Amino acid sequence: MVDLFKKCYDFTRADEVKAMGVYPYFRPIEENEGPVVQIEGRKIVMAGSNNYLGLTAHPKVKEAAIKAVEKYGTGCSGSRYLTGTLDLHVELEERLAKFFGTEAVLLYSTGYQTAQGVIATLVQRGEYVVSDKDNHACIVAGQIMARGATAELVRYKHNDMNDLERVLKKIPVEAGKLIVSDGVFSTGGEIVDLPTLVDLAKKYNARLLIDDAHAVGVIGKGGRGTASEFDLEEEVDLTMGTFSKTFASLGGFVAGKERVINYLKHNSPALIFSASPTPASVAAALAALDILEAEPWRVQKLIDNANKVRTELKEAGFNVLDGRTAIVPVIVGDDALAFQMWRRLFDEGVFVNVFISPGVPQGRQMMRTSYMSTHEEEHLDYIINTFKKVGKELGLI
Amino acid sequence: MVDLFKKCYDFTRADEVKAMGVYPYFRPIEENEGPVVQIEGRKIVMAGSNNYLGLTAHPKVKEAAIKAVEKYGTGCSGSRYLTGTLDLHVELEERLAKFFGTEAVLLYSTGYQTAQGVIATLVQRGEYVVSDKDNHACIVAGQIMARGATAELVRYKHNDMNDLERVLKKIPVEAGKLIVSDGVFSTGGEIVDLPTLVDLAKKYNARLLIDDAHAVGVIGKGGRGTASEFDLEEEVDLTMGTFSKTFASLGGFVAGKERVINYLKHNSPALIFSASPTPASVAAALAALDILEAEPWRVQKLIDNANKVRTELKEAGFNVLDGRTAIVPVIVGDDALAFQMWRRLFDEGVFVNVFISPGVPQGRQMMRTSYMSTHEEEHLDYIINTFKKVGKELGLI
Repeated sequence: MVDLFKKCYDFTRADEVKAMGVYPYFRPIEENEGPVVQIEGRKIVMAGSNNYLGLTAHPKVKEAAIKAVEKYGTGCSGSRYLTGTLDLHVELEERLAKFFGTEAVLLYSTGYQTAQGVIATLVQRGEYVVSDKDNHACIVAGQIMARGATAELVRYKHNDMNDLERVLKKIPVEAGKLIVSDGVFSTGGEIVDLPTLVDLAKKYNARLLIDDAHAVGVIGKGGRGTASEFDLEEEVDLTMGTFSKTFASLGGFVAGKERVINYLKHNSPALIFSASPTPASVAAALAALDILEAEPWRVQKLIDNANKVRTELKEAGFNVLDGRTAIVPVIVGDDALAFQMWRRLFDEGVFVNVFISPGVPQGRQMMRTSYMSTHEEEHLDYIINTFKKVGKELGLI
Repeated sequence: MVDLFKKCYDFTRADEVKAMGVYPYFRPIEENEGPVVQIEGRKIVMAGSNNYLGLTAHPKVKEAAIKAVEKYGTGCSGSRYLTGTLDLHVELEERLAKFFGTEAVLLYSTGYQTAQGVIATLVQRGEYVVSDKDNHACIVAGQIMARGATAELVRYKHNDMNDLERVLKKIPVEAGKLIVSDGVFSTGGEIVDLPTLVDLAKKYNARLLIDDAHAVGVIGKGGRGTASEFDLEEEVDLTMGTFSKTFASLGGFVAGKERVINYLKHNSPALIFSASPTPASVAAALAALDILEAEPWRVQKLIDNANKVRTELKEAGFNVLDGRTAIVPVIVGDDALAFQMWRRLFDEGVFVNVFISPGVPQGRQMMRTSYMSTHEEEHLDYIINTFKKVGKELGLI
């Protein structure tokens, strides 16, 4: 007789990592100015946030959130569908549609929920989700949910267009298909091969959904994301994104044609049965969008910052993945070494995210660093010098 | 060749309802004081919100949210697991654990995500989700996701303990099982038969998850929910809930034993890969919890308010479902009539939620009304009198 909770009692890995003193997760932040945070009473330079434009601490963004709390209160107490729509939600949808040049936009309560709200609603019995194997966990959740609701699921090798075509050839040509890919992949930071993806989607009767969580505010014209980066705005059927990165808030959105958005509005459980984004979050995202539109230099500054670290860590001898987004992965290649390096960086005052197996394949264990446009030269130099110091200690360089 | 989007072009029901002028969904609220909102420039009495204790507009709750924005900024830009944990999140988890008398609590970014974060993580291959057929859509999403990830799913007739036992008997006794039920069902407002549920869980080697979204702040000692209502706190393995109702904010939580919560913290994709609740939302929930603990009379006032409407609408001849929660469903029994009644109530200045088929079975189409502790006598009388007026017009009473 197996207790459902046996797996919980058997799970001791976290305890073991804690006992070794190198546990990197759930560290409470006590103060957050953006590039510098306070943890355990110490100032730490943050090199692991998705706060790409640093706008969570921007006075105008904070002011907008505060005004929204004053006017609308602290929550909406209902879903968009029923009693949780404010004029503010509609305004943000219209502003985003204009920003992306699409007919319509629909907000979801989190970026994570957006993927399932779109994928599991659009892809039904006899239809196919076709998904990159390295897609973000929210897409994985959406495709598993679609499969659980009797849709078909096929996956292709990461950003491998030959494998995608191989997979597409095997699917009945007459069946509806949705190809789903991250625009910028969240672990490695690489950009999808969108031109080929678009060609294959057309050739094989598939629609295309791009997750631009790590692309908006990062690549494309004025930070407009992956489709804009490749001048393929008309070819991407649906773009989804999040408010918890560039937009300094919490929530998600999907942009596309009015008829498709209208269908989602009336058929997507993750929308209809989930309380809507809070007034403060929507107002913050609106203010962040204002700033992104008015000050596109912030996007360039972000990329310059990431490029500086990428270049200098590589020159120092680190195994750094190439790229041109805000994500700079430094490969360490071993779980124990990764935890150890995280701890040493933390002790020296730098916070990064540690990715171990099975989250990444063996040998790809990494310090996943990411940058903000509000990192100043001194912060970046501090990060680089600390990496060098710790890297030498651990024999990595 | 079928276009994936064909279903979107074919979907015209919403357009038809709009053309008839009775479309009740996505109405933007322009101002929200709680019992009274402004829509299309008119003041409307709200009888459809989940803002049970009316705390989204409470000065202390708003002040807490504003202070959190000032101190921590507008978002956390990362998941709890990585860079999105604040001391505030930990404080709310500890406070809720104390409130519910459980070992530990874990926050999720929405109540909707909580169900899948728990169910699809705990119930794995060869194990069973056993679910009430009327469970909330977030549980449905969780169980579909679990099935998509190769768990088994069985459902039993709504709150029917004989059917539950019939179903349990068919499942291998040695297999791990999770029985999942709403504590208070979101459509009809009825309370689960928890004593029998607990007996059956014990008898058949099952663990028990109760969704108290509509129960916390509503039933139980001091609003502590379903387990408390039946003095069965020790027998319910996991209780989940939301911040978008009684707690005046956005987010969700699960409460249980430390080992189970620890497992979820390190294995639940909906937690690990979703940005954490915003500082404003967490602070608002903390302030709402303070008020709930200090002023339990608010819970009684809420029930008194709902009971007044329930009694008077019934006396007036409406088909009102019995109950003792904050939800008062008025059965209309027909889609067209439901839309028509919604429109007339709205024109007369009362906002309710309209539930039509297939959301509810044929004949159960309803005006789902719900109440707040901040509804005053005048608001309730206005709602009751408007129902009577419109009910007579439409031949319902």
